[in-house]
Amino acid sequence: MKLEVSKIESCSVFKNFKIEKISKVQQKKIVNNIFLKKISDMLGWLDVIDVREENLNNIEKFACQIRKKYKNFVVLGIGGSALGVKTLKHAFFDSIHKKEKIKTFVCDNIDSDGFISLLDALDLKKTIFNVITKSGSTSETLAQMSVVLKLLSDKKIKADKHIIVTTTKDNDLYQFAIKNNFKVFDIPKDVGGRFSVFSNVGIVPCAIMGLNIKELLSGAKMARENAKKYDYTNISYTSAYINYKALEKGFTNLVFMPYSDRLMLVSDYFAQLWAESLGKKFNRSGEEIFSGQTPIKALGVTDQHSQLQLYTEGPRDKIFMFLKVQEKIFDFTLDYDIPFMKKLNNIELSTLLNSEFFATRLSLSSLDIPNYSIIIDKIDEKNMGSLLFYLQMTTAFMGEMMEIDAYNQNGVEQSKVYTKASLGFEGLNEQKRLIEDFRKTQKLIGY
Amino acid sequence: MKLEVSKIESCSVFKNFKIEKISKVQQKKIVNNIFLKKISDMLGWLDVIDVREENLNNIEKFACQIRKKYKNFVVLGIGGSALGVKTLKHAFFDSIHKKEKIKTFVCDNIDSDGFISLLDALDLKKTIFNVITKSGSTSETLAQMSVVLKLLSDKKIKADKHIIVTTTKDNDLYQFAIKNNFKVFDIPKDVGGRFSVFSNVGIVPCAIMGLNIKELLSGAKMARENAKKYDYTNISYTSAYINYKALEKGFTNLVFMPYSDRLMLVSDYFAQLWAESLGKKFNRSGEEIFSGQTPIKALGVTDQHSQLQLYTEGPRDKIFMFLKVQEKIFDFTLDYDIPFMKKLNNIELSTLLNSEFFATRLSLSSLDIPNYSIIIDKIDEKNMGSLLFYLQMTTAFMGEMMEIDAYNQNGVEQSKVYTKASLGFEGLNEQKRLIEDFRKTQKLIGY
Repeated sequence: MKLEVSKIESCSVFKNFKIEKISKVQQKKIVNNIFLKKISDMLGWLDVIDVREENLNNIEKFACQIRKKYKNFVVLGIGGSALGVKTLKHAFFDSIHKKEKIKTFVCDNIDSDGFISLLDALDLKKTIFNVITKSGSTSETLAQMSVVLKLLSDKKIKADKHIIVTTTKDNDLYQFAIKNNFKVFDIPKDVGGRFSVFSNVGIVPCAIMGLNIKELLSGAKMARENAKKYDYTNISYTSAYINYKALEKGFTNLVFMPYSDRLMLVSDYFAQLWAESLGKKFNRSGEEIFSGQTPIKALGVTDQHSQLQLYTEGPRDKIFMFLKVQEKIFDFTLDYDIPFMKKLNNIELSTLLNSEFFATRLSLSSLDIPNYSIIIDKIDEKNMGSLLFYLQMTTAFMGEMMEIDAYNQNGVEQSKVYTKASLGFEGLNEQKRLIEDFRKTQKLIGY
Repeated sequence: MKLEVSKIESCSVFKNFKIEKISKVQQKKIVNNIFLKKISDMLGWLDVIDVREENLNNIEKFACQIRKKYKNFVVLGIGGSALGVKTLKHAFFDSIHKKEKIKTFVCDNIDSDGFISLLDALDLKKTIFNVITKSGSTSETLAQMSVVLKLLSDKKIKADKHIIVTTTKDNDLYQFAIKNNFKVFDIPKDVGGRFSVFSNVGIVPCAIMGLNIKELLSGAKMARENAKKYDYTNISYTSAYINYKALEKGFTNLVFMPYSDRLMLVSDYFAQLWAESLGKKFNRSGEEIFSGQTPIKALGVTDQHSQLQLYTEGPRDKIFMFLKVQEKIFDFTLDYDIPFMKKLNNIELSTLLNSEFFATRLSLSSLDIPNYSIIIDKIDEKNMGSLLFYLQMTTAFMGEMMEIDAYNQNGVEQSKVYTKASLGFEGLNEQKRLIEDFRKTQKLIGY
């Protein structure tokens, strides 16, 4: 994995920035804060990739049995419990029209049109569900589980052969699963949802899909080794540093733009890490800061025909992080004689993509708009593990630079309370009053 | 279709804003600029929805024949030539797991892994392609066409039975298509790509997919009628006005967030309209303004577990546009007895979704963050036509308020020139020098 930074160094906002000149003292302190001082008690994700060979063998054996017994595999989860698996499923199957080893669905929304219509279309006798929620109390996931249990019961299918539960040891869901004889995998308490893809949250579903989980973890370890370095060759740190400097200079938006269909959902994976970890009202000293850099998901070359106009001529509030893959599995030489497009003759389709990627970077650079690229050789398990772990590390370093707690998410609590009040839970009278007030003053116009 | 604005009126940034008080004089001028004075020569999209019944019947007859003859239908296009059809395909088929009347693929990228692997998987004898490019010179789409023509020729399949071309009359592609006996549909010169879903660009593929195009157009007409009104009940104008006021106050980002799986891609459709139309370096008077409001795509409830933390505690630079559907096709009563989640018992799954939608709105409002909602009764062709046309009108009104030309896209030209230079086209020596310079100074770090 490589970081390409040449043109960003000459951006005028950075005033002749050189990555070699990043403060090593500061860097050593931050790297040590994370790896040695363990500045947060939610850093379990750093070690969760050190799984014993034997455990991995057991997961693989289990996965193999599942693939033999079932035709469909459905993940029930939301946010961090779904995004990693969704991203990897897209990269290895959907985007290259490759037949899956087991037909897999990741259900990360509760829209009944989407969810119920899917269940309607599946043969439940041949379907296995993996319920994933760290707390064991995520309403959306429990609601999904409730639907599935009801349907299985209606069809007189024994649930214990069709449900796998992945959650934290000893919570209510864990107990419920044990009591009902469901297969259970646990999630360590010190691994937060958005950092959990390398725990059982991601590893078990990936094994079931037939991905090589050992390679995935070995890629993650490479990214971790690199992230321990004390100089600019630590690419997670250098990336975070560039983003941090940009944010200081008013670049409050970060466009994440893979030039690869297969990596399209890495944007979603990154967007959660970046938004939930860094969007914070307070810093560690308790000062009100309303910090954060808004992640914007884009796809090359497609979004050149949708967003590039805004990127080049719109507000100068964006820094760009591109993602590029060197090798393709499929390619094609353009050599059909179309008289009015001779210029596109005798080049590979991948050459056109690469030229457009290059051109976009150069256009932005020539407009003095900061951008850099992450480059991977090819899409395999090792590189994907490395890429996702690199993104986690970059987020962690950025959090330290911003002096915030990157591992909580207090900002979503109020909305959860309002949901409960709206559903008529006991108490919450103040919230119920606000809801009533809103309903009364509702103003609708239209046709 | 309804616009819900109650809470935005009490946002402190708007200082007791009342939609009834929007200046009618100004509104009349802007509405007339568009509908009567035709301030741009690219306003053909306003009238393209008035297709003669006979023409629609012919398209439907043609579509019906296609469905009888072929198993697969592949759209080749990018940007405005693909987004409308992609959005509607998702709303009516993919997201509710509904069997398509003809298996449809919208190819809007040139990543060879994605595109070539798809063609590899299809039986070309049973496949019809619709090549869509207004200019007839879009490199990505022509490259796709070149691949398809080569494959057909290799397999000794006569191309004229497998290609439909949609382009502007008399350009090179049009001539090429006529010469090769391809079926051709034309696009009016005064309809830009991102405003073209109701022209043959969108209508022909929708008819082939089996959607009711008459209803689609009738919905669009309802939105147009509403947009001619001179007061606040003109919901496109009122929406644009709110966004414009927000932008003036520093809300440079607009989060577009449907609470509906089926409407997920409406975000992509809107994002193109909003970004390409409003991201402009100059206003109509030639002053440098670097204007625009960055569209951010989100999905409820899913992104409550990914982006909401940033929305509530991050930078106060976002206004929110929600999208809500009243009726569901599928629903489910949660009544399986799970001891530790009794609170979720005896409610509909849709009630949970609605409560969360309500809660998100209320949380944002209680934090003084501006937000409003578009509400449609149900997802059918009429409502989808109405919704997409409403979004076009809102964009057009916003452009007038900002005093910019919403119909050009000069900002992407430079990138096209660099692509040509990078591909080795003749001339372009200055650009080639810049590319060489870049290649020489390329700085890569990593592992």
